[in-house]
Amino acid sequence: MRAAVFANPGSIEIQEVADPHIQESTDAVVKVTATCVCGSDLWYYRGLADRESGARIGHEFIGEVVEVGADVRNLKVGDFVIAPFKYSCGECAHCKYGMTANCSSGGIWGLRGVDGGQGQYVRSPLADGTLVKVPGKPDREMQRHLLALSDVACTGYHAAISSRVKQGGTVAVVGDGAVGLSAVMSAAILGAEIIFALSTHEPRQQIAKKFGATTIVNARGDEAKEIIKDLTDGVGVDSVMECVGTAQSSQTAFDILRPGGTIGTVGVPHGLEWPAGKMFTNNFNVAGGVAPARVYIPTLLDKVLAGTIEPGIVFDYDFDFENIQGAYEAMDARTGTKAISFLD
Amino acid sequence: MRAAVFANPGSIEIQEVADPHIQESTDAVVKVTATCVCGSDLWYYRGLADRESGARIGHEFIGEVVEVGADVRNLKVGDFVIAPFKYSCGECAHCKYGMTANCSSGGIWGLRGVDGGQGQYVRSPLADGTLVKVPGKPDREMQRHLLALSDVACTGYHAAISSRVKQGGTVAVVGDGAVGLSAVMSAAILGAEIIFALSTHEPRQQIAKKFGATTIVNARGDEAKEIIKDLTDGVGVDSVMECVGTAQSSQTAFDILRPGGTIGTVGVPHGLEWPAGKMFTNNFNVAGGVAPARVYIPTLLDKVLAGTIEPGIVFDYDFDFENIQGAYEAMDARTGTKAISFLD
Repeated sequence: MRAAVFANPGSIEIQEVADPHIQESTDAVVKVTATCVCGSDLWYYRGLADRESGARIGHEFIGEVVEVGADVRNLKVGDFVIAPFKYSCGECAHCKYGMTANCSSGGIWGLRGVDGGQGQYVRSPLADGTLVKVPGKPDREMQRHLLALSDVACTGYHAAISSRVKQGGTVAVVGDGAVGLSAVMSAAILGAEIIFALSTHEPRQQIAKKFGATTIVNARGDEAKEIIKDLTDGVGVDSVMECVGTAQSSQTAFDILRPGGTIGTVGVPHGLEWPAGKMFTNNFNVAGGVAPARVYIPTLLDKVLAGTIEPGIVFDYDFDFENIQGAYEAMDARTGTKAISFLD
Repeated sequence: MRAAVFANPGSIEIQEVADPHIQESTDAVVKVTATCVCGSDLWYYRGLADRESGARIGHEFIGEVVEVGADVRNLKVGDFVIAPFKYSCGECAHCKYGMTANCSSGGIWGLRGVDGGQGQYVRSPLADGTLVKVPGKPDREMQRHLLALSDVACTGYHAAISSRVKQGGTVAVVGDGAVGLSAVMSAAILGAEIIFALSTHEPRQQIAKKFGATTIVNARGDEAKEIIKDLTDGVGVDSVMECVGTAQSSQTAFDILRPGGTIGTVGVPHGLEWPAGKMFTNNFNVAGGVAPARVYIPTLLDKVLAGTIEPGIVFDYDFDFENIQGAYEAMDARTGTKAISFLD
């Protein structure tokens, strides 16, 4: 089979690798029909995070079950499934508490002997706990929306849930990547009345508007802060979805938050600490982290199947799987928001 | 009139000062019937926080309204009132959002020309927004419970609300001062099933038990962490009420929290930052800050008047007002949990 392999920073290769097979009785093997590249894959591509040369990569995929272990109860060969970006057992205390990304026996695709998601086949550990069945055989248009549920839609939704977006609330999204855009969609799902989307990138502004942003803030940093403070009579917003994780983006998040408001963080914080004294004085709350996608997929899947949300519109760059290098390059250069490839 | 004055670190004097009178039409003057000393007053007493020599001090009091300004609508002379530890307008965006401690025109007693709470009379700015009327003329036993609502009971309640204590939840309180003990009471009010109270001080352990602690953890730091991890099958607790604010106490709070859990902070953080990366990986949430006591007083007052809670049992040291120095010394030496004085 063919699969993406991290060669070196700046170089992702499609190589011939061994076909996966059932190893544990709780495994399933999935024939991948669509996969994509994540902003977090770029950390390795850019050499900003370490990854072993020759390691598999990718953690978002959907496809058809082609083999199941003896103890798999809820899935059968032929089922179409969505894989959350982390596998999880569904039975431990953390999973039962809704924290599947913190599963005691879970992990992320592409590490510790587990296949990466960017490949023709993937062995899924803990298949019953991990994979979410989709009825029927979705067409390619539908698959775009389903693949978005693997990570970005759920991560954006986690930002919205964590930041306590409420019906009628005034909220802001910092970050206009696929996750930030999905957070806009999620804020709209949860009934926010005013949704500020910070974006200086015209194509992404258009997606933000489609997802329900009521005001595009075409600025960053202090300029964005002043605009939002002006538009909220100096008060700030109830909820900030922080979808970047840099010093500047988190500073902006604190600058535009009202006392008693909550920042939902889903951008991996890079070299940051949160300002305890400032948070205390202002009753600023910080919540969030690695999204429990497995928990959110059923909720969002229902809305996708009902046609009420279209999370897949974040995919604005289709690539031929053998040229995955070009997809990484496009996302690195921000000429694509999120790159998708169909493998069947 | 007689009032407490901060002379120097280690020295609090009762001095003769000018009687307060109405300055603004929204003021009221309160004849104080009971006041007390707060753990946060000790920061000045110990010289760990700056305070001008000669400044008034104290921010907790109850008493009788003896004068009202022309624009005071909800109070009249003779009303018995509880003063929250910060005054607030009740009308600005922050107050309406429930964040009265962050009121646009509010402040704390004893600073910026506003009387301290440790004195025979106090002029209250923004009286309608600030003071909470109590029916009738409460006796001294009842006044103990009412005075607790001025700060510690509400601050403990804020810890519980902020840490999202839920019916049936497993929670822990770090800190066995009057606020920590009040957090135990608040967790019980909110229906927590298992309440760990960390305390190495026998008299305070007794109060914690009366307030509803189900398990006393007679340890600190790593030892306390191991005990709680053992007792929760390695999982940790849903909610931690952090009522201290030191490096050790906050480290313990993070050590015993489960993924997806929330720390409610009401201990002023001293020289701390929160660990963004650790929080992100574990979905640890941090909420809280300066308690909006004005918002919580009516809720807790109803329970006090109904006899369902007795927050005043934290007062275990009664002092003669003229000897307030002795009360500061007792609290500094931890021979008293919280010191109360009746002035009438």
